[in-house]
Amino acid sequence: MPEKLYSYQQLLAFTQSVFRQLGCSEKDAELAAKVLLSADLRGIDSHGVARLSGYVRLWEVDRVNAKPGIRIIHETPSTAVVDGDSGLGLVVAPYAMQVAINKAKQVGTGWVSVQNSNHFGIAGYHGMMALDHDMIGIAMTNASPLVSPTFSIERLLGTNPICVAIPAGEEPPFVADLATTTAANGKLEILQRKNLEAPSGWVQDKEGNPSVNPHELKSGGALLPLGGDRDHGSHKGYALGAIVDIFSAVLSGANYGPWVPPFPAYVPMPDEQPGKGIGHFFGAMRIDAFRPASEFKSNMDKWIRRFRSAETVAGEEQVLIPGDPEREMEENRRKAGIPLLNAVAADLQLLSEKLKIPFHIR
Amino acid sequence: MPEKLYSYQQLLAFTQSVFRQLGCSEKDAELAAKVLLSADLRGIDSHGVARLSGYVRLWEVDRVNAKPGIRIIHETPSTAVVDGDSGLGLVVAPYAMQVAINKAKQVGTGWVSVQNSNHFGIAGYHGMMALDHDMIGIAMTNASPLVSPTFSIERLLGTNPICVAIPAGEEPPFVADLATTTAANGKLEILQRKNLEAPSGWVQDKEGNPSVNPHELKSGGALLPLGGDRDHGSHKGYALGAIVDIFSAVLSGANYGPWVPPFPAYVPMPDEQPGKGIGHFFGAMRIDAFRPASEFKSNMDKWIRRFRSAETVAGEEQVLIPGDPEREMEENRRKAGIPLLNAVAADLQLLSEKLKIPFHIR
Repeated sequence: MPEKLYSYQQLLAFTQSVFRQLGCSEKDAELAAKVLLSADLRGIDSHGVARLSGYVRLWEVDRVNAKPGIRIIHETPSTAVVDGDSGLGLVVAPYAMQVAINKAKQVGTGWVSVQNSNHFGIAGYHGMMALDHDMIGIAMTNASPLVSPTFSIERLLGTNPICVAIPAGEEPPFVADLATTTAANGKLEILQRKNLEAPSGWVQDKEGNPSVNPHELKSGGALLPLGGDRDHGSHKGYALGAIVDIFSAVLSGANYGPWVPPFPAYVPMPDEQPGKGIGHFFGAMRIDAFRPASEFKSNMDKWIRRFRSAETVAGEEQVLIPGDPEREMEENRRKAGIPLLNAVAADLQLLSEKLKIPFHIR
Repeated sequence: MPEKLYSYQQLLAFTQSVFRQLGCSEKDAELAAKVLLSADLRGIDSHGVARLSGYVRLWEVDRVNAKPGIRIIHETPSTAVVDGDSGLGLVVAPYAMQVAINKAKQVGTGWVSVQNSNHFGIAGYHGMMALDHDMIGIAMTNASPLVSPTFSIERLLGTNPICVAIPAGEEPPFVADLATTTAANGKLEILQRKNLEAPSGWVQDKEGNPSVNPHELKSGGALLPLGGDRDHGSHKGYALGAIVDIFSAVLSGANYGPWVPPFPAYVPMPDEQPGKGIGHFFGAMRIDAFRPASEFKSNMDKWIRRFRSAETVAGEEQVLIPGDPEREMEENRRKAGIPLLNAVAADLQLLSEKLKIPFHIR
């Protein structure tokens, strides 16, 4: 059955109404909806409206504060720690990224570690906030433990994504937004729904054996760090995921490793948590704190054009620049609409009935 | 034939004499030797004395300035661009890292991009300089193009390593030092010498086909980004290598991508280079710019102990913390000596004769 298409505006309005209903201010509801929908626009479907009911359930069990008093609890000229007061990460993260940008305006760069937050949608949204200011933006977050470090059968890390957004001149910006696992959880979910095998190096079973069964996570298995196994560099993916965890949570005083709060509201919280909520980390670097922005941008254009015009292996059209697929997806979906799986549309329908907010197929 | 062991002190003294002979000041020769030997101590044999004759050849063709006027050419409170004046990267990099540390003392963090430099040894040495100051240290560099981005048959990136060094309390520090390729070039060289096959995902041939032949690089093939191929996340390794290239060289005004000067002195320089020399990037973040160092360190100890004690897959003793293998290697080699391949020892012997500096087997 083909997926139905929904307009961006319709999904945005519905999502905004849902957040308003939870008690968010008008401004926060608008921002949270925009951040969440940026995932659907950019084709990272697992992190968009598919998660809306999950956020609502977190609010229902009192793990999301709809009216947070987000504040800076420590700072220096180039750094800050932000307490998200259990707010939606969708709102806490843009606040913290703005703090980083403001500091970069003052002293060249700004670096903000965040405690006491919740899931923040896609890292890309937040990192890209820097672009309009002629800054490089960096965003990362830890997440519920689904990933086993090299040699471990325990799940100790989240998919811990990193976004680095870099402005260019005439070319579109360079936007890398990557989970530090071989494959993002969303890709595994697609294989689960289609009952297809996963490539090697994506998952292991509960004893730590390599597996191609995309359902392993439901029976005690784990996602694998980028690289897959030791021979293919999984210790590097593990190190990258660990760095994200430490910058986001050990620096800020959030929970780290296996103590990160799970996204599903029905999963009990880990015992003896060492921190508050989940953690994020943001950075902003003003280009002209290094060299004139115009010089940098013309060199970025040259970089991008050289890579994009590289000779390709047979059967591939072009070498891509990080951010190319997501940008094309966004252009297309803004016009044509956003496809939702029937299960996701049904989930929104249930939410519509529960919260008495109309949700109509366009 | 077993490799012979050489004492750290002997190799250090010899290397120092070699750099002195090139015209380096006493202080620079001592520093360069110490940085170079840190690779041998930590088991990254491809980046240590095995490269000494390569540095000498770069000096012979006038690509290394033994008496550089290293200086800051642009700065803000938290950033700087350093011009290495074609000096040894082994000397330029510690200078630039010290600038980052000094800025972090003042405003919380320091970020330094470097142009007009040469190869800097291992990233680990420079990143670890921050540890004694209760700072997180970050070091990266671009390098001669040996790596093909996903879908490319052209070699456009170096192995572009990243080091992140994080202090702990009672536990040894967390030190990740990783090439952004599936396997470092040094590991491939080991397979070449032993005539063994490489695992899948390490290299491709000159047409971009996957290959297990470790000699492919000599016949137009390439190293592959971490992940190996698209299905296994090579676009992520490519993005990481690209970020290192841009931070190190587009931010500083060094050469990037295919224009990075080759390490072998006999390889001609690329035409129409857009910048000066090779580029590096360094960062230092003061822990107490985020939270009290004692709090951070006790949480790092907890992090490290939890990961190190994780249940392992059958046949593996322990989950490792990034930096564990290199630290153990260093402890062992400081005591037992550093093994050199016969080819490397012979190379040092030739250098000894050419420069009239005694080099005796201990």
